[in-house]
Amino acid sequence: MVVSAAAAKDEAGLGALDRLLAATAAEMEKVNALILKRADSHVEMVPELARYLIEAGGKRLRPMLTVAAALLCGRPDGAQTNYAAAVEFQASVLVGDYLLGQAFLMMVETGKLDALGVLAKAATIIAEGEVFQLSKAGDVTATPADYDQVIRAKTATLFQAAAEVGAIAGGADAAARDALRDYGMELGLAFQLVDDVLDYRGESGAMGKNTGDDLREGKMTLPVILALADANPAERDIITASLGKPDATDAALAQVVAIMNRHDALTRTVEQAHEHVRKAREALAPLPPSGMRTILSDIAEFYVSRAY
Amino acid sequence: MVVSAAAAKDEAGLGALDRLLAATAAEMEKVNALILKRADSHVEMVPELARYLIEAGGKRLRPMLTVAAALLCGRPDGAQTNYAAAVEFQASVLVGDYLLGQAFLMMVETGKLDALGVLAKAATIIAEGEVFQLSKAGDVTATPADYDQVIRAKTATLFQAAAEVGAIAGGADAAARDALRDYGMELGLAFQLVDDVLDYRGESGAMGKNTGDDLREGKMTLPVILALADANPAERDIITASLGKPDATDAALAQVVAIMNRHDALTRTVEQAHEHVRKAREALAPLPPSGMRTILSDIAEFYVSRAY
Repeated sequence: MVVSAAAAKDEAGLGALDRLLAATAAEMEKVNALILKRADSHVEMVPELARYLIEAGGKRLRPMLTVAAALLCGRPDGAQTNYAAAVEFQASVLVGDYLLGQAFLMMVETGKLDALGVLAKAATIIAEGEVFQLSKAGDVTATPADYDQVIRAKTATLFQAAAEVGAIAGGADAAARDALRDYGMELGLAFQLVDDVLDYRGESGAMGKNTGDDLREGKMTLPVILALADANPAERDIITASLGKPDATDAALAQVVAIMNRHDALTRTVEQAHEHVRKAREALAPLPPSGMRTILSDIAEFYVSRAY
Repeated sequence: MVVSAAAAKDEAGLGALDRLLAATAAEMEKVNALILKRADSHVEMVPELARYLIEAGGKRLRPMLTVAAALLCGRPDGAQTNYAAAVEFQASVLVGDYLLGQAFLMMVETGKLDALGVLAKAATIIAEGEVFQLSKAGDVTATPADYDQVIRAKTATLFQAAAEVGAIAGGADAAARDALRDYGMELGLAFQLVDDVLDYRGESGAMGKNTGDDLREGKMTLPVILALADANPAERDIITASLGKPDATDAALAQVVAIMNRHDALTRTVEQAHEHVRKAREALAPLPPSGMRTILSDIAEFYVSRAY
């Protein structure tokens, strides 16, 4: 049984794929816009992956199928845009699962159970951190301690694990391993604090980060926690009016930043980042001096200098 | 407390990031090669994401940290390459989680519980399918029914869900929804069967698919199941000698393909794909004729024509 190529062409000689692309083009533009919008995350990899999803164009049979089915059924109410994007995002979870499987395979191949344990434990802590952060979203009673708990789990744990497994591969003794483990944690904390300052300082990163995203998403980062703690009732109302509101205007955001500056919330957050840089450098002190030790010491400072 | 920019430069005036990049460059080349190798999957999105991970270059502080820690500790045994790649892959799981969260948010926003139910159920079935497929890897007693179960769950379910939620968005009645649901399932099955043929036909896809990957990974796809069922003992030994062996040579692969051709295993797999195309077109029959119905009918045939 051989497919006749002619059977799949219409009178104009267009193949089936060309016709499907044409018939869904207008709707797929909306899907692409939604994918870009919803993948506008601070995590650098997210917007990049979203861009890939869009550029993959013709290969995206599944979302085209969703759109085509909606059009075929005659009364599309607009929900197909959300569904098509959701179908595409769902597929990307499988990619993540695949890569996690490969990650553990690669760990196993080295035959070192302790390194595997470090990464497995990190994965658990990160997942817990995500759950905890979700529970705190938009919660105006969140404390600096809550924030510290979130960024330790969500960001710094993977930095810590990255440094610790490197130490294991480098034949570190227990003291060197602890030193690098502590260094990774403090570096990660400094990194995240600076990131959270930049979200209000208007320096959009190259990777899709937009000023004010955290506020609009209701993320209780240290700048907003510190500002709320010191705000008078009128200032507090201005902050909560924008917190967790995706459609908060840039003017409203500017008001919030002005309140933050009045209470030195951003400056104090940067100071905390410096404190973690100091601890990161201190953690390296027990290691014998070397060119690499100097680089790691300096790189911590470098990442905090992004805040200026 | 202000960071002195001068403090982070060495005698040659190089900043900390430049020095870290230089000191880890040779090792990071190995990490990049490993990432590409381990992300060489058939799922089109996986190798693309891997390429992104590599191109992101300077931003990849975490794997550089792993490499730097290993070098700093003085006795790197090579495991740092695996660990650095694993750390990077681990981060990509978070991207998947983020996008899954966004997927469900987008579904919820449409206010239609039945569409949310369709995608949630699909996610469950897909995960089950992955587990089932893992349990069958390299199992020479796997049957065509096992294969059918895997591809229904792992590939066709998401096609089915994509078509069904589109129908919901299009205001379909129960009959139209069922029709498109069945169409999506049959289209997905045909799609996967052709993909599994192409893995042996030597037509590497644009997206990182390599001939013989399935055999080397021990994937029990229909061509190998059919060949094993009809093979004589000598042929059987040749197949099992390469099955699940990552380092099987291209010559060994060619021998396996010759055995498959002797028993028409690839032709019979394509025939099954045609049977699913027939069912996909049949599923559309109850729907009123329209340009879009014709396109969907033709597109099923188009994807199977890739097998030639």
